[in-house]
Amino acid sequence: MQTSQNPSRRDFIKTSAAIGAGLILWSPVLATDKGDKMNAITTKGYAAFDESGVLKPWTFTRRPVGDNDVLIDIKFASICHSDIHQEKGHWGKQQYPQVPGHEIAGVVTAVGKNVTKFKVGDRAGVGCMVDGCTTCENEEQYQSDTLFTYGYPDKREPTRISQGGYSKQIVVRDHYVVHIPDSLSFENAAPLLCAGITTYSPIMRADFKKGDKVAVAGIGGLGHMAVKFALSRGAEVYAFTTSADKVEDIKAFGVKEVIVVDDTKKLYEYAGQMDYMICTIPYQFDVAAYASVVKPYGFFTQVGMPEAFEITLNNLGLSFSRVNFNASLIGGMKETQEVVDYCAENKIYPQIEIIDAKDITDAWKKVENKQARFRYVIDTATI
Amino acid sequence: MQTSQNPSRRDFIKTSAAIGAGLILWSPVLATDKGDKMNAITTKGYAAFDESGVLKPWTFTRRPVGDNDVLIDIKFASICHSDIHQEKGHWGKQQYPQVPGHEIAGVVTAVGKNVTKFKVGDRAGVGCMVDGCTTCENEEQYQSDTLFTYGYPDKREPTRISQGGYSKQIVVRDHYVVHIPDSLSFENAAPLLCAGITTYSPIMRADFKKGDKVAVAGIGGLGHMAVKFALSRGAEVYAFTTSADKVEDIKAFGVKEVIVVDDTKKLYEYAGQMDYMICTIPYQFDVAAYASVVKPYGFFTQVGMPEAFEITLNNLGLSFSRVNFNASLIGGMKETQEVVDYCAENKIYPQIEIIDAKDITDAWKKVENKQARFRYVIDTATI
Repeated sequence: MQTSQNPSRRDFIKTSAAIGAGLILWSPVLATDKGDKMNAITTKGYAAFDESGVLKPWTFTRRPVGDNDVLIDIKFASICHSDIHQEKGHWGKQQYPQVPGHEIAGVVTAVGKNVTKFKVGDRAGVGCMVDGCTTCENEEQYQSDTLFTYGYPDKREPTRISQGGYSKQIVVRDHYVVHIPDSLSFENAAPLLCAGITTYSPIMRADFKKGDKVAVAGIGGLGHMAVKFALSRGAEVYAFTTSADKVEDIKAFGVKEVIVVDDTKKLYEYAGQMDYMICTIPYQFDVAAYASVVKPYGFFTQVGMPEAFEITLNNLGLSFSRVNFNASLIGGMKETQEVVDYCAENKIYPQIEIIDAKDITDAWKKVENKQARFRYVIDTATI
Repeated sequence: MQTSQNPSRRDFIKTSAAIGAGLILWSPVLATDKGDKMNAITTKGYAAFDESGVLKPWTFTRRPVGDNDVLIDIKFASICHSDIHQEKGHWGKQQYPQVPGHEIAGVVTAVGKNVTKFKVGDRAGVGCMVDGCTTCENEEQYQSDTLFTYGYPDKREPTRISQGGYSKQIVVRDHYVVHIPDSLSFENAAPLLCAGITTYSPIMRADFKKGDKVAVAGIGGLGHMAVKFALSRGAEVYAFTTSADKVEDIKAFGVKEVIVVDDTKKLYEYAGQMDYMICTIPYQFDVAAYASVVKPYGFFTQVGMPEAFEITLNNLGLSFSRVNFNASLIGGMKETQEVVDYCAENKIYPQIEIIDAKDITDAWKKVENKQARFRYVIDTATI
């Protein structure tokens, strides 16, 4: 792990890229600003108190709004599988209580004196990052000083870690907030801030053209957005799911075919046919088997992050398909604004189910059991 | 596993690509020709009798020379790490006694009646495959009916499996034999038949130009050939090794720099600098850390095959480098002739040490202990 308090960007990328199987969590950088108890913001949220996966109401204090910050009254926050992984300790030990949530939509209620990008009353969205570099050209996610939305050490915070979006309010550096167009509802905007950008970023960069075959594996929160983005680029989409009971819902998105992978042998039937594949499966799976559906020398992008971030693949299998395997993390802030605007313009909306905060624990179980259709969105009025 | 005796090529590729972590060995296809005891060839070799890694002399019988076959008097056969992996059962249970060896050079001493490609007295080389498709345009390695050189079920063989090159003679289908130019010695030709072609194939396809930076990781039998091929294409080569005592030998090849990776942190210093990387490490290693030295969106090719063919990588680390990971198996027969000719023309020779057959067991230990410099070649006159 990086231990310097102020590593260079290069150092961080080197470290992060090189940490390999030993990695627990990417390196946080401790901010050194002093907490300001006078203007601290007392708010309410739902927090994990241990690794049990049970969330309970919690009243806590956030740092004051700094000169470059925006205070947001959260309207809706959606549930990402990452929330569950992190709070259950799958990606390393956590400090509790911890409020998860990095798909956040709401209204600006205060701005710091240097903020020009937002004004009170603006509709605003926040994703996986809340502070860090403001000049790094859409590459914020790879910077050394990026503060991720929850569970990251931040000395400015009274709780000493960032606290996420399952709450009534949040304080965020202006650069890390995006505008939500009026035509997009808060509840439809929230899932775009992680599930949306994480799939939009690789799909928009991927080398396929209208009419090409694009495979999406794992049709959950991320996967169903991947399907929609690939369709919006004119692809013929093949959805691979392990859940037979999702077939009709997925078909309704307009895909060419839904393949229920109850046995990896099912994948043989599609060997070498796809122009591109994106996989959102957030646990260990048979990479070589899935990659085999892509044309030789094509590309396979993994965006699901399994426990310990580890993926075991069969190198012999991969050599037979000659497919290029790569991974994508989230996306940049410029792209995040882009995906929100793109969805508003093209009327691309996540398929959501709005829940009350008291049902978060139950919703997490459903996410783990693949019962979500396809994103649970918490109405923060119920917190 | 594929169970059909005659799966189509597509079936086999599907199976092989899809077998994933459960794979033990790729699917052999049983030939159905009857053995011909009358014309069977009695020969001598060094065989593994169990998983101990100890090889002993063995007299055994090979199938007669068929109408499309070539009989070769083996002069030299070299030792590949794959021999050790397979005989020790790292890639699945084996039938013993089994003669390993798939880097074979010798002289044709008999040809079947249909053979026009070779005549008695021709200098000949044999690699990882000895029978199979003859019309599949350089893609033999991916065919369903490919017979690999040792340990593969073959009903024509009196021992019921193919027996490899650590022996005095071998019978091979003509398509799977290459010509060795007069200017190339048998001992220098042998290592080209696996170590050569396995690195030549991806390096010649790789997208880099003269003066670009190419990284080679793992400088053993395959790695040192990879260095030579990359240099022959005009690359500036960076050699990554874990063996400090190899530095001077590797420098002598003409590389720009040798990096001793005694700690993966060493890799951080080269983050994002390389135009391409090929890795020959035949055991589990920190893929994301090594891949991090490649420029974003560049390519990393894995040719080393670890135990059970499994590679575990850190997906988060890989997302930071944005490098494309792929695997390459061997190469086609057309390419195999090409690499032999290329080495003869360009005077590219492996760095070898000739050993007596009685020292094979000792040499295997040295290969495992990274003491080979860089390929042991068995003088089969000593069998």
